[in-house]
Amino acid sequence: MNFVSDNAYGAAPEILAAIAAANEDTAPPYGRDAVTARLKGIFSNLFERDVSVFPVITGTAANALSLSTLVPPYGAIFCHTDSHIAVDECGAPEFYAHGAKLIPIDGSEAKLSPPALETAISRLRKGDPHSVQPAAVSVTQATERGTVYSVDEIKAISGIARSHGMKLHMDGARFANAVAHLRCSAADITWRAGVDALSFGATKNGALGAEAVVFFDSALVGDFEYRRMKGGHLLSKTRFVSAQLEAYVSHDLWLRQAARANALAQKLAQALREISNIEIATAPQANAVFARMPNEMVKRLRKAGAQFYEWENPQDGKTVIRLVTSFATPEQSIAGFLAAVKG
Amino acid sequence: MNFVSDNAYGAAPEILAAIAAANEDTAPPYGRDAVTARLKGIFSNLFERDVSVFPVITGTAANALSLSTLVPPYGAIFCHTDSHIAVDECGAPEFYAHGAKLIPIDGSEAKLSPPALETAISRLRKGDPHSVQPAAVSVTQATERGTVYSVDEIKAISGIARSHGMKLHMDGARFANAVAHLRCSAADITWRAGVDALSFGATKNGALGAEAVVFFDSALVGDFEYRRMKGGHLLSKTRFVSAQLEAYVSHDLWLRQAARANALAQKLAQALREISNIEIATAPQANAVFARMPNEMVKRLRKAGAQFYEWENPQDGKTVIRLVTSFATPEQSIAGFLAAVKG
Amino acid sequence: MNFVSDNAYGAAPEILAAIAAANEDTAPPYGRDAVTARLKGIFSNLFERDVSVFPVITGTAANALSLSTLVPPYGAIFCHTDSHIAVDECGAPEFYAHGAKLIPIDGSEAKLSPPALETAISRLRKGDPHSVQPAAVSVTQATERGTVYSVDEIKAISGIARSHGMKLHMDGARFANAVAHLRCSAADITWRAGVDALSFGATKNGALGAEAVVFFDSALVGDFEYRRMKGGHLLSKTRFVSAQLEAYVSHDLWLRQAARANALAQKLAQALREISNIEIATAPQANAVFARMPNEMVKRLRKAGAQFYEWENPQDGKTVIRLVTSFATPEQSIAGFLAAVKG
Amino acid sequence: MNFVSDNAYGAAPEILAAIAAANEDTAPPYGRDAVTARLKGIFSNLFERDVSVFPVITGTAANALSLSTLVPPYGAIFCHTDSHIAVDECGAPEFYAHGAKLIPIDGSEAKLSPPALETAISRLRKGDPHSVQPAAVSVTQATERGTVYSVDEIKAISGIARSHGMKLHMDGARFANAVAHLRCSAADITWRAGVDALSFGATKNGALGAEAVVFFDSALVGDFEYRRMKGGHLLSKTRFVSAQLEAYVSHDLWLRQAARANALAQKLAQALREISNIEIATAPQANAVFARMPNEMVKRLRKAGAQFYEWENPQDGKTVIRLVTSFATPEQSIAGFLAAVKG
Repeated sequence: MNFVSDNAYGAAPEILAAIAAANEDTAPPYGRDAVTARLKGIFSNLFERDVSVFPVITGTAANALSLSTLVPPYGAIFCHTDSHIAVDECGAPEFYAHGAKLIPIDGSEAKLSPPALETAISRLRKGDPHSVQPAAVSVTQATERGTVYSVDEIKAISGIARSHGMKLHMDGARFANAVAHLRCSAADITWRAGVDALSFGATKNGALGAEAVVFFDSALVGDFEYRRMKGGHLLSKTRFVSAQLEAYVSHDLWLRQAARANALAQKLAQALREISNIEIATAPQANAVFARMPNEMVKRLRKAGAQFYEWENPQDGKTVIRLVTSFATPEQSIAGFLAAVKG
Repeated sequence: MNFVSDNAYGAAPEILAAIAAANEDTAPPYGRDAVTARLKGIFSNLFERDVSVFPVITGTAANALSLSTLVPPYGAIFCHTDSHIAVDECGAPEFYAHGAKLIPIDGSEAKLSPPALETAISRLRKGDPHSVQPAAVSVTQATERGTVYSVDEIKAISGIARSHGMKLHMDGARFANAVAHLRCSAADITWRAGVDALSFGATKNGALGAEAVVFFDSALVGDFEYRRMKGGHLLSKTRFVSAQLEAYVSHDLWLRQAARANALAQKLAQALREISNIEIATAPQANAVFARMPNEMVKRLRKAGAQFYEWENPQDGKTVIRLVTSFATPEQSIAGFLAAVKG
Repeated sequence: MNFVSDNAYGAAPEILAAIAAANEDTAPPYGRDAVTARLKGIFSNLFERDVSVFPVITGTAANALSLSTLVPPYGAIFCHTDSHIAVDECGAPEFYAHGAKLIPIDGSEAKLSPPALETAISRLRKGDPHSVQPAAVSVTQATERGTVYSVDEIKAISGIARSHGMKLHMDGARFANAVAHLRCSAADITWRAGVDALSFGATKNGALGAEAVVFFDSALVGDFEYRRMKGGHLLSKTRFVSAQLEAYVSHDLWLRQAARANALAQKLAQALREISNIEIATAPQANAVFARMPNEMVKRLRKAGAQFYEWENPQDGKTVIRLVTSFATPEQSIAGFLAAVKG
Repeated sequence: MNFVSDNAYGAAPEILAAIAAANEDTAPPYGRDAVTARLKGIFSNLFERDVSVFPVITGTAANALSLSTLVPPYGAIFCHTDSHIAVDECGAPEFYAHGAKLIPIDGSEAKLSPPALETAISRLRKGDPHSVQPAAVSVTQATERGTVYSVDEIKAISGIARSHGMKLHMDGARFANAVAHLRCSAADITWRAGVDALSFGATKNGALGAEAVVFFDSALVGDFEYRRMKGGHLLSKTRFVSAQLEAYVSHDLWLRQAARANALAQKLAQALREISNIEIATAPQANAVFARMPNEMVKRLRKAGAQFYEWENPQDGKTVIRLVTSFATPEQSIAGFLAAVKG
C-alpha cells in the first residue's frame, strides 16, 4: 500500500523493452544517435508544431536548465509558494541561473492567481538596476496539490507574462496527469495557451529516469545545449533516455498510464469522502488525494502497512495526509487502504 | 567496426538484468532505497576501507561535483592539458566550483609529471588574495591517451599535493581499465596511494549510465549531497543507478569487462605494429590505441566501414587515429579492421 | 529641500581632510598600508572586543560578501520582505553566495518578529537535500522604515538563530542612526546581543564611499579576503577608504552626525503631526519620516522644490512619502518644507 | 624611493580638487547625478565616437564586469599567461562570467602573438557543447611587462578575434601610459583598431580610485548595469568617482601624468643600462623597468631604502627586479636609486 509518491513505483514494461531494443547495436554517443534524432519528429507531432526537444534525467535538471536559458542572472521568476522549484530543488534554479531570484506567491490549490501575480510583478521596479527584473513565470501542471490548471487559467497567466515581456515556463513533472484530466491536446495546454518552455516529465509516470525539455519556439533554445553540458547533464549514452521518451509517448502510453493513476485517485477520494471524520478539501484532478483525518486513523493506517506523507503538522487531533497514486498502483492497494481506514 | 569510443557500446546483460530486478517492487525515492543502502558496504569492501559513495549519472557530474566539494571558489585545480575536465566538460568544474580555476599542465602520455606539477604550483602566491590558491590535483586514470599511472606515479603526485595542503582527485571514467592493467587492488591505486576522491566510472565499461563518487575519508564529504541536489543530479529513482553499480562490481564484472577491452587493444596494437607505415608511439595499457598511418590507409579503413576519431590534423601525409575497444567490441571487428588496413 | 535620501548629501569635511592626510606619502597597496592596519585596533576599541574589520566601498558589497562568507550555496537567509538585501541589491547576495536563497518574511515596521521567523524556519526540512538549509538571519539596523530594533529585540532574534545553528548578520547601512537613537554602546546592540557579522555603514552618514565589514568572531572570517578580491572589491588604494572609516569613528563623528540627522527627523515628524490631514504611522527613531498626506499637498511640496520619494502608490486621495534627513540637511530645508506643506 | 607600483602613490591634486567641487551640493545617488551624466559626452569626445561609459572603483571590477558582459558562461577568454586577469584577480572573471574559462597563452614581452592565438583557438571544437567556445580575447595595454602593443599589433589580434566571431577586450589599467607612448589618439588604439570594450584605468595614474568601463558599440552594453549592481559595484555617491574621471581626462591630465611616468622609466632604464652587470632585456615603453642585476646589488638597494618587487626567483647569482615609476615619483627617487645602485 504505497502512496508515498508516484516515483516510488518503477518502470513500465514498455519502457524496459525500449531500453533493451536500444541496446541492440553501437550508436554515436552524446545524443547524436538515431533514437534521439527521432525525438524531434515525435514531439513535434505530439505538440502539433515544430518543437525543440532535449532529453535530461531529472525534473530538477529540466526545470533549472530551461529556466536558466529563459532568464538572465538579474531576472525574477514568479512561482507558487509551494512549487517544486521553490521548495524542493535546493535552489537549483538560482544556481543554474547564476543568482536569479524566485518570487514565491501564495495562492489556493497550489495555483498562481492572476491578481496575485500582477501584484507581485508590480512590486519590482522595471528598469531600475537595484531591482531584479520580471523575466519568467513558472507554473506546475498538474500542481503540487493534485489540481490542474484549465486552458483558460494558463491563458490568463501567459497574458500577464506577455504583457510584461516575460516568458512562461511549465513544470510538467506530472504533465501527463494534467492532460489526461483535461482531455485536451498537448498543444492546447502548452504553446496554444502561451507556454514557452515545458519540462515534460516521464519519470513519475513509468520511466526509469527521463524528462524532456521542450521549447516551442526555437529562438528560445539559445545556449541550452551548452548549459546542459556545463551542468553535467549530457549523457554519453543518451539513446537510453531517448528510447524511454519515445516509448513513453508512443501508443498513448503516457496518457493511458496517467489516466489510470488519475482514476485511482478519484476512486480513492470518493470512497474516503463517504467516511465520516475524513475531509477532502479539494477534489483530486490529477493523481493525488489530500485527506484530513483523525490522528488515530493515521496511526491505524500506518499499522496496516500503508505508506504516505503527512503533509501538515497535526492540528486539533487531525492530520492532512497525501496519497499519491501511480500507473502501477495495484487495485488491491486501494482496497486494502480503504479496509484499513475503516478499521 | 566501431572504435569511436567505448561509450558507443551499450549495456552488459548483467546490467540490464539488475535493472529489471530492481524494478520488482516499490522503493523509497531519492536514494533512500535498499539497493542504494547496500552500496556503502559493497564499495567499502571493494576498497578495503570504510568509504562514502554516491551514485550519479555522468562522469562530468561526478568530476564537477566531487571537485567542487574539495575546492573553494578561490581554489586552483591542477590537471593535465588534455584532461577531460580541462577540455571536454564545457567548464563544468568551474561552474560547480563557482569560478575556481583549472591550471592545465603539459606532460607526455597525458600524464602529470611531478616536476611540472611543482613548477605550476610554485607560480601561485600562497596567502595572497590576488592569486587563486592551490587546492586540488586531478589525475585521469586510465588517461585520455590510453596510458595508466603506476602506483608509484600516483604516490609521487599525492606526495606533492599533500605537501601543499591540496587534495587529490582521480577521474576514473576508465578506472576499471587501469586496475585491470595494473592487476593491483582498487585500494592500492587510490587511497593507499593518496587519492582523496574518485569518480568511479561504469558507463564506458558496460553500464547504461552510472558513475559513483567515492570519498575515502568521510570528513571530505562535506556538503556533497546538497551540491548534488542543487545540480539536479539526485535521481528520484536512484535505485536503478545503484543497481547498475551493484551489478557492475559484483562477480568482478567490471574487471572482466575491462580486461577484455584491454586485451583487444593490445591485440590490435600488436598487429598494427607489424604493418609497415604504421607507428604506435605509446604501447596501449588501457583500451585505446593511437596509431599514425598514411592518409590513404585512413581513407581505405573508412571505406571498409571502420569508425574512429582522427586525433590530430594530418601532417606529412599521415594521420593519428584513435581506436577504442570496449567490453563488447566483437572479435570480428578487430579482424575486419586488420583486413581492411592491409587493403 | 532634499529629503530623497541621506546619500544625496556629500562628505563631511572631516572625511575629506582624512583623505587629504592619507595622501601625504606613498603607501603599500591593497590594504597593507598603515591606516588600514590601524582599523583593527580602532574598531576593536569601538566594539570593546577583538574584531576583524575589512573596508569595502558599498553597502551591497558589505552585505553580499559577509553573507556569502557565513552561508553555504544551499543555505537560506531569512530577512524582512522590505529589506535592502531582498529588494534593492539585484540579487547580489544570491550571486555572491552561489545561489543561496533569501526567504522574505513580512513584519510590521520593517522588523522581523520572532514568531514569524520561527514559522518561516519551520517550513524548511532540516537535513533534507531537497530543501535549502537554515543558515543565517539578516536584520537591518536601523530598518528601511526608520525604526530601530531594541537590544532585547535583537537578542530574541539571535536566540532563535542560535537555536537553529544559524548566524546573525546585521545590515548596518544606518547603524550610526540606530546607535544614536538607542544611546547604547556599539557592543550592546551587536555581539553582546548575538550579532555575528555587521555591515557597518559610513557612506550614508558622511563618508564619500566607505563601509566596514566587521566579524565579531575571527573564526567566522573564513575566506572573506579571497571573496572580496574575487568580487573585485579589494581597492589598490585601500588607504583612502580606511582613512574615511578612521575619521568617521574618531571623536564620535559618526554618532554626532547621526544624532543630528535623527533629531531633524524627530523635529520634522513632530511638526508634521500637528498639521491636520497628515498621518505619521510610526514615530521616527532613526532619520526617516513616513508621512501620509493628501495628493494636493504632495503636489504643492514638489512645486516648492522639495525632493522626496513617494513610497506607496496613492490611495484614497492620499500618498505616503518618505523624508530622509542627513548629517548635512540644512535647518532651512526643514523650515522651508514645513512652510511649503502649510501652503 | 618607492618603485613598488604606481598604485603606491596617492592622488593628484586635480583629482582631490574635483572631489571637493563635487561635494558642493546634494545630488541624486547611484549615478543619476550631473557629473556622471557628463561622462558620456566627455568620453565620446575623447574617443571621437559615441561611447557608453560606466564608472567603477577597481580594475578587477572593470575587467570582470566587462568580460562577463561580452562572454557567455560557456565561453573562452584568450589572454596572456601573465595577464592581470589570469594571475592577479583571484578568478574574478570566471566568477562574474559564471564559470567561463580563461585560456592563458605564452608570448614574449607579455604580448599575445597572432600565431599563438590562432593555435589556441584551433584547439577548441566549435559547435561542440563539450568544449568552451571562443568568445573573447583580452589584451593588456600597456602590458604587465611595461611594453606597449602597436596599433598594427592590436589590429592583427582584432582581425583574428573578428574572424572567429569573438570580441576584443582591452585591460587598460595603464592605458594612459600606452597612449602617451604611442602618441596616437585614444580612438586609434581602441575601436579603430577593433577593440570592443576597454577597462580605462585612472587609479594607477593619479586617481583615488576610479576606472571607466567603455563600450564602443552600445549594442554590446547589454545587461552591464544589472551586472554592476549585482556585483555591488554601483556606488550611491557615484558622483565622486565620476568627478575623478572627469578631472582625469580634462586638460590632458591623464596623458601629462602618464608621459611623466614613462619618461622617468626611460631615464632610469637608460642610466641602469650603462652600469655593467645590469641587463635590461626589454626597453621600457610604458612606466616599468625590468632589470636583471647581481643579488648583492639588490641587497644594497634595499639597504639604501629602495622599494621594489623581485620579479623572478634569483638565478645564477642574479635577480630580475621590477621598477615602476608613477606620475608622482620624485626626481630624487631616481637620483637616489642610481646612486645606491652604483654603491
